Amino acid sequence: MQYTFQVQGMTCGHCERAVVHAVRQVDTDALVKVDLATGQVIVESDKSREALANAIQEEGYKVAA
Amino acid sequence: MQYTFQVQGMTCGHCERAVVHAVRQVDTDALVKVDLATGQVIVESDKSREALANAIQEEGYKVAA
Repeated sequence: MQYTFQVQGMTCGHCERAVVHAVRQVDTDALVKVDLATGQVIVESDKSREALANAIQEEGYKVAA
Repeated sequence: MQYTFQVQGMTCGHCERAVVHAVRQVDTDALVKVDLATGQVIVESDKSREALANAIQEEGYKVAA
């Protein structure tokens, strides 16, 4: 499945890496693309949207949609 | 010596940790205090101001003063 998340609070490359890492903790094989400027995170994964969103939120970022 | 650096580009807690880590690479025993809101970094160290500033800049942040 491909999911698009609108993530708030990512300000820099460290944040980008933290979000990618959080997603990969849930799914090692996930493909993750982050657009820092817009806050959009696109994830290709066979895990659930909820599990991925929770991982991002537990890293300290708000998932708006 | 106590030095005050005006650092640009720190946006989040990761950046704060990256700067603290960079300083500690130069001086393990340095005391480092970062004010993210103002960009002020106060370092207590027996290393030179230049060595500390270089370490912060090599981490990707601009030291303005």
